Amino acid sequence: MQEADKNKVVVLPLGSLEQHGHHSPLLTDTYLVTAVAQRVEQELSEQIYLLPTLWLGASDHHLDRPGTVSVPNHIYTLMIKNIVRSFAKAGFQRVFLLNGHGGNVVPGTQAITELANESDIYDNMWIALSSYWTVAEPAMAPEHHGMETPHLTHACEYETSMMLFLHGEIMRMDRVTSSPPLIDSPFYHSEHGGRINVGKRLVTWAPTGAMGKPQHATPEKGESLLNAITGEVVACIKDFETW
Amino acid sequence: MQEADKNKVVVLPLGSLEQHGHHSPLLTDTYLVTAVAQRVEQELSEQIYLLPTLWLGASDHHLDRPGTVSVPNHIYTLMIKNIVRSFAKAGFQRVFLLNGHGGNVVPGTQAITELANESDIYDNMWIALSSYWTVAEPAMAPEHHGMETPHLTHACEYETSMMLFLHGEIMRMDRVTSSPPLIDSPFYHSEHGGRINVGKRLVTWAPTGAMGKPQHATPEKGESLLNAITGEVVACIKDFETW
Amino acid sequence: MQEADKNKVVVLPLGSLEQHGHHSPLLTDTYLVTAVAQRVEQELSEQIYLLPTLWLGASDHHLDRPGTVSVPNHIYTLMIKNIVRSFAKAGFQRVFLLNGHGGNVVPGTQAITELANESDIYDNMWIALSSYWTVAEPAMAPEHHGMETPHLTHACEYETSMMLFLHGEIMRMDRVTSSPPLIDSPFYHSEHGGRINVGKRLVTWAPTGAMGKPQHATPEKGESLLNAITGEVVACIKDFETW
Amino acid sequence: MQEADKNKVVVLPLGSLEQHGHHSPLLTDTYLVTAVAQRVEQELSEQIYLLPTLWLGASDHHLDRPGTVSVPNHIYTLMIKNIVRSFAKAGFQRVFLLNGHGGNVVPGTQAITELANESDIYDNMWIALSSYWTVAEPAMAPEHHGMETPHLTHACEYETSMMLFLHGEIMRMDRVTSSPPLIDSPFYHSEHGGRINVGKRLVTWAPTGAMGKPQHATPEKGESLLNAITGEVVACIKDFETW
Amino acid sequence: MQEADKNKVVVLPLGSLEQHGHHSPLLTDTYLVTAVAQRVEQELSEQIYLLPTLWLGASDHHLDRPGTVSVPNHIYTLMIKNIVRSFAKAGFQRVFLLNGHGGNVVPGTQAITELANESDIYDNMWIALSSYWTVAEPAMAPEHHGMETPHLTHACEYETSMMLFLHGEIMRMDRVTSSPPLIDSPFYHSEHGGRINVGKRLVTWAPTGAMGKPQHATPEKGESLLNAITGEVVACIKDFETW
Amino acid sequence: MQEADKNKVVVLPLGSLEQHGHHSPLLTDTYLVTAVAQRVEQELSEQIYLLPTLWLGASDHHLDRPGTVSVPNHIYTLMIKNIVRSFAKAGFQRVFLLNGHGGNVVPGTQAITELANESDIYDNMWIALSSYWTVAEPAMAPEHHGMETPHLTHACEYETSMMLFLHGEIMRMDRVTSSPPLIDSPFYHSEHGGRINVGKRLVTWAPTGAMGKPQHATPEKGESLLNAITGEVVACIKDFETW
Repeated sequence: MQEADKNKVVVLPLGSLEQHGHHSPLLTDTYLVTAVAQRVEQELSEQIYLLPTLWLGASDHHLDRPGTVSVPNHIYTLMIKNIVRSFAKAGFQRVFLLNGHGGNVVPGTQAITELANESDIYDNMWIALSSYWTVAEPAMAPEHHGMETPHLTHACEYETSMMLFLHGEIMRMDRVTSSPPLIDSPFYHSEHGGRINVGKRLVTWAPTGAMGKPQHATPEKGESLLNAITGEVVACIKDFETW
Repeated sequence: MQEADKNKVVVLPLGSLEQHGHHSPLLTDTYLVTAVAQRVEQELSEQIYLLPTLWLGASDHHLDRPGTVSVPNHIYTLMIKNIVRSFAKAGFQRVFLLNGHGGNVVPGTQAITELANESDIYDNMWIALSSYWTVAEPAMAPEHHGMETPHLTHACEYETSMMLFLHGEIMRMDRVTSSPPLIDSPFYHSEHGGRINVGKRLVTWAPTGAMGKPQHATPEKGESLLNAITGEVVACIKDFETW
Repeated sequence: MQEADKNKVVVLPLGSLEQHGHHSPLLTDTYLVTAVAQRVEQELSEQIYLLPTLWLGASDHHLDRPGTVSVPNHIYTLMIKNIVRSFAKAGFQRVFLLNGHGGNVVPGTQAITELANESDIYDNMWIALSSYWTVAEPAMAPEHHGMETPHLTHACEYETSMMLFLHGEIMRMDRVTSSPPLIDSPFYHSEHGGRINVGKRLVTWAPTGAMGKPQHATPEKGESLLNAITGEVVACIKDFETW
Repeated sequence: MQEADKNKVVVLPLGSLEQHGHHSPLLTDTYLVTAVAQRVEQELSEQIYLLPTLWLGASDHHLDRPGTVSVPNHIYTLMIKNIVRSFAKAGFQRVFLLNGHGGNVVPGTQAITELANESDIYDNMWIALSSYWTVAEPAMAPEHHGMETPHLTHACEYETSMMLFLHGEIMRMDRVTSSPPLIDSPFYHSEHGGRINVGKRLVTWAPTGAMGKPQHATPEKGESLLNAITGEVVACIKDFETW
Repeated sequence: MQEADKNKVVVLPLGSLEQHGHHSPLLTDTYLVTAVAQRVEQELSEQIYLLPTLWLGASDHHLDRPGTVSVPNHIYTLMIKNIVRSFAKAGFQRVFLLNGHGGNVVPGTQAITELANESDIYDNMWIALSSYWTVAEPAMAPEHHGMETPHLTHACEYETSMMLFLHGEIMRMDRVTSSPPLIDSPFYHSEHGGRINVGKRLVTWAPTGAMGKPQHATPEKGESLLNAITGEVVACIKDFETW
Repeated sequence: MQEADKNKVVVLPLGSLEQHGHHSPLLTDTYLVTAVAQRVEQELSEQIYLLPTLWLGASDHHLDRPGTVSVPNHIYTLMIKNIVRSFAKAGFQRVFLLNGHGGNVVPGTQAITELANESDIYDNMWIALSSYWTVAEPAMAPEHHGMETPHLTHACEYETSMMLFLHGEIMRMDRVTSSPPLIDSPFYHSEHGGRINVGKRLVTWAPTGAMGKPQHATPEKGESLLNAITGEVVACIKDFETW
């Protein structure tokens, strides 16, 4: 890094290596968040300092499916704490952890919460964490992209569409599976979540490891989503820079 | 406990002991979640097994304010894991952690996530965690209760109203403070949160330890909120029982 | 809390939620230590700052009995360390951890020992921990109260008497059980302890979870004990204030 | 070890390496507990399996005095847990941790408590821990040995007497120091302890690192004490064998 | 992954992101071990299952140099333990951790040692860890490649040569620095190590963060080294497969 | 210790208590490293401050053999970290951990690496760790001592020879066992190690717990080895003193 890089926003993409149904690769989350991050870097090359994607994620709820490589939540928390400590040590003042795997949100947030509470050295830093689908939520509204399902979940219409656009050659759409949600109540939907958090491994909710309706995925939807996401993340980081 | 209690939903209210501005007591969160839980128990006495509220919470972000008593997030995670382990050991099959303090959500969710991932003994259990304001979100819509602010935050119009209704005699409305939000952007509001998680201690956002506009609180609003919340939590637990 | 509270002795009662035979409630220890603490507060209202009782204790040796909710010793140690850290942060200088559950003594003492060793910030503080039956040992001598057994143990004549006096309506004296001690040698008594510490779960010593002879309990003995205990704890805290 | 050794009581002496005033060596506790253990072994050679003394103890409260080598309490707990686990793995069924340093009692008891609670593999084992002065308390009564002080504390009349008898050539009686107790109340004596536990480092209580009145020590008193202690520990282990 | 992959040797390349003098990129170790791994995969595509390189390494000894991103050793140990646990869960039986950063060796070996000791589930697995320069030591002898320095160290003639061959466009040979070793005795050389291990941060040994004589690096040497290394690692894994 | 001792090199011998075949005692490593250390002290009495040998080592890979007493690697790391912290606290500036058990090398090195990385208080200290056979490697070359095997391993010709010289009366040469190595390839030898680290318990490699060919041991070889080792360690510490 150069001296001037310290004034940039460090962006660390957070991925995973976990089973994504029978049709999408283990590195799906890593591919997607990396694609978003690289597009953002193209637009904000002077403002962000982009790190390589951390593919090792908190995916223990997927370990029932062979191929998943993961650390438990509390170790992921320790990893993120020490990574951000490294940024502080280097003199960075703004850190944006751009997440691409749902399972990383809780342990990642645990990490940045504890850092702020533990030491004054973070008082002069802004440390943020969000998933690209949360940052870009309004822009990902299904009606804007012709989606048949309401939200991005896991190995779903959304993720599969973006993978088809980016890495169609390694997708196995002939092996797509789909199943109805196990729970669909006003308080909780076993794929989209809801108003309560539930402790269960993925195998409970998704027999084949895919959620939503990946069969409706198309590369066109994927391109459209990716463009929308990139725009929102760019806008968010520009906002973040002004804090 | 009796043998028959094992078939009930264990409800453990999670509170805190932390500064709540100059006008509301340290135990505000504990009082409120206890009040909700007791009202729920009145309606579901045959279905729930209610534990005493755990007042020790994850409030390290409030420690800058004297009076706060707290454990760091990762220790709160360990507490919750071992409490739920105790329930499993006793033979309970449904656990509902009814939360009343925002800072408990991440470490509590970290706990139930890790439990499910670590051992098959939780496979036959349903373990849920949610804050009463999340469970009751639709029913707490400001227009239903004459609120001037959009959400429950901390020592705010919502919490203060309910405290006035429940424990008006210990409230110090003569000492109410209020201040504008530090950040109010499309991506993040320093009181209501937003699309990103940020690692900062409360002292950054709220100079006096109160958020929102507690000066607009009234006991009438509090009663109305409490009734609505109780109804939603009752409905949620009835739904949870059917899973 | 008020600024002036910092000069008071913080008193934190430590309880448990664990099986107490078939006749006394899970919260027996919590009820008793709370009753003692409240009586002490009545006499020392200007001198002590009383916190709510922490009912979550180190009762893993009782987990074989359903209903017990507990954390392992080393986590209890972490809880106590962080609670006392909170008191230090707030500016208190005298902390008295008033214990009501035998299993908390070792991990609680581990906590205050480590705090003193770890940081100079505790050098100006006095941090004490004791069980009410240890503080009041001379005053609880069995001959003063007409007791038939020599010491307070667990769900015993002593605890049951005080519970009968305080909460007789929830006691189930029709279900009292009693059994002879498993080991009764000059070096160790399986109920009263002795000159050595032994690692065993309670189920080894007490088949029904009750020790001593609770059948001899009366509310009159309980009232007498409670008065004696209160007097001694008051005297002890007055002494502690002068250090 | 031989196959037959598994039926013996494993005896592990626990010492320390910590400052003991200006007149007694760092290894005082280690020398003393080793001497006791060796005398016990002479009498019970067929019944006990004696390990070498573990000199690394929990003496962080002595670290203010150069020369002390120590681990914090929670690490000592982990050491003892894993040592006893090794005994279980080898097939031993009775373990006696014979302690010679006060600071080891709490973390050692934390260890054996947690082991019993954590796993059924210890259900068939008897695991005990005690300091030689506690086992031998009645036999060490001051009037039996012509002592001028009431209890064994640290670098005191008792320890110094035994060291003079055992290793007089390395004692520096010309450098003996003594000072009055800092606190001497009905509830707490800063050298002998009392009815409450207090978190303080030794430097608070003993300016030179010696307690009691070591100037009254004589080798004759030491021999008398050592004989009495040996007798009681032998009796205790014989009792322990019958459990 | 496919079912048949379980019979392959999992190869996980371990890299770092740390300062490498003023002339070589932060990801030097990651680039190099990835290049080796990819060449090995080309030759052993049927026999190995190659994972993406883990760039997050144990580089805390480099944190004095801005840009380094690292976790402490004990957290790296936990990461590796959980990664290998994931492989065991998936059914793999041979794991080769191919290391490219010196700082990973000790914590990585700590990890695989503990795994083998902790659980029988690893008894049927072969878990190996080595750095490519150790596997290929004989083949990297300086005389085979025209090297002027005896060993690969850090940002040195060896690493720089391979980087020039692989990624010459990002190398800054105009900024190469070099300095004499601080200690050069028969027992220890501050760059090449020796017969003792020493606890020191890199800043002690290498003022600019480069060791050895990178000014002698050429892409030709790099190509020659890379070919030799690949050959040896291929041979090693073929050997490993037969165990 | 005396004030002047602070200028000396602290030497802490690290041993183990673990099975060593059927012919050599559990404390073999402890006896040997102690013998080396005492001989070194005789030659360098003014320069080194020798501590008692720490017999509790990281021998979990030997736990399958009854009699072994051990802690897991990560706890050994914590022990060593806190021991060296004690030396720093006392004012020592040079620490040499003289190891006598192979299993201690990785966790001991993990310890001194982390200490250097964690705090500046070690910047002015030199902290070294090495096994006596590594320090003395050139001087132990088999041809110098008439050895039939190439390296010191475990309960082998080398260790047994030295034990015969030092403690012949407790050796059971009538019970010596020997077995061929399980793996003997250019990359790995199951007794001497090789170019890769492998996670396996000792029981895999050595059915009786002895390696190499102890039947060739003689006290004469042992004396010759011990003299050579002592000379090299003395030379090494003299060198270390000059850093």
